[in-house]
Amino acid sequence: MRILGIDPGSSATGYGVVERCGANVSYVAHGTIRTPASAPLERRLAAIQAELSAAIVEYRPDRAVVERVFVSVNPRSALVLGQARGAILAALGSAGIPVDELAAREIKKAVTGVGAAEKLQVQVMVARLLHLSRPPAQDAADALAAAIARAQMGRLAALGVGRRRSRRQLLPGAAP
Amino acid sequence: MRILGIDPGSSATGYGVVERCGANVSYVAHGTIRTPASAPLERRLAAIQAELSAAIVEYRPDRAVVERVFVSVNPRSALVLGQARGAILAALGSAGIPVDELAAREIKKAVTGVGAAEKLQVQVMVARLLHLSRPPAQDAADALAAAIARAQMGRLAALGVGRRRSRRQLLPGAAP
Repeated sequence: MRILGIDPGSSATGYGVVERCGANVSYVAHGTIRTPASAPLERRLAAIQAELSAAIVEYRPDRAVVERVFVSVNPRSALVLGQARGAILAALGSAGIPVDELAAREIKKAVTGVGAAEKLQVQVMVARLLHLSRPPAQDAADALAAAIARAQMGRLAALGVGRRRSRRQLLPGAAP
Repeated sequence: MRILGIDPGSSATGYGVVERCGANVSYVAHGTIRTPASAPLERRLAAIQAELSAAIVEYRPDRAVVERVFVSVNPRSALVLGQARGAILAALGSAGIPVDELAAREIKKAVTGVGAAEKLQVQVMVARLLHLSRPPAQDAADALAAAIARAQMGRLAALGVGRRRSRRQLLPGAAP
């Protein structure tokens, strides 16, 4: 099973693809989609969608995962993040790829063992777990971390461990 | 010039198309895109995009206008609205259609003469201005109202009236 993790943002959107095969999670690809701050918003969102759709065609993921948004952020940030998420989710929906949401704590815990891990620690552990020669840039590392976390949950679920909890957490579009 | 007004929402997105010819603003079309609340979010956003793209192909607008978001709304609402906006703006950007934002007050004032008009008043005045036999549903009426407001601003700008103010208000993606 191939999993596409995405870390949405209007200026930089990270993505990362991993493959789960039995108990192993292996690296496939990662990248960062950047859009010029000077361009009109509709062009930037269209560019994010176009690049993400190209990555979907190239890496053919079976499912995708994005970090759940904590709505304690301020309304302006929620709007800006929501717009990037909307463009990304629509591209995934158009491609028929089901999307799961995971809380930041679950993602960090899956890759570092600690739910409150620092950004750098996530980058280092992602590189170690996927045998990369160096830590990926932050947005792509967060995206790979989400994909790893989703892959591990799938493995646990397949083994019958914590299945009920996993199912509830993975309901697409469910409110926290 | 054909103008597409859009009132974004994840459960119901209204759209309306008007044509400006000299001093006249005439009706072209309107509709409401509805998505089932039971469907996963990514499917709903993809469906909004697909239907909007079909309307763009059918009515070939030269530009689009959406209501500017007041960020005084709560973060959860801002996120949900942002996601619908993101899917819509990406579709417009992909089609190469420039998007303007207008404040709700400007839109209401343009169609009713009052910036704090009630929803029903907007529906009634939209029907009257466009010679419709009955008021459109609320989402579509708001979309048509935005399109009418943009058309009127364009006319005033063409006459050299209030040009500086219009230009500033119409900067795409500009914060209020």
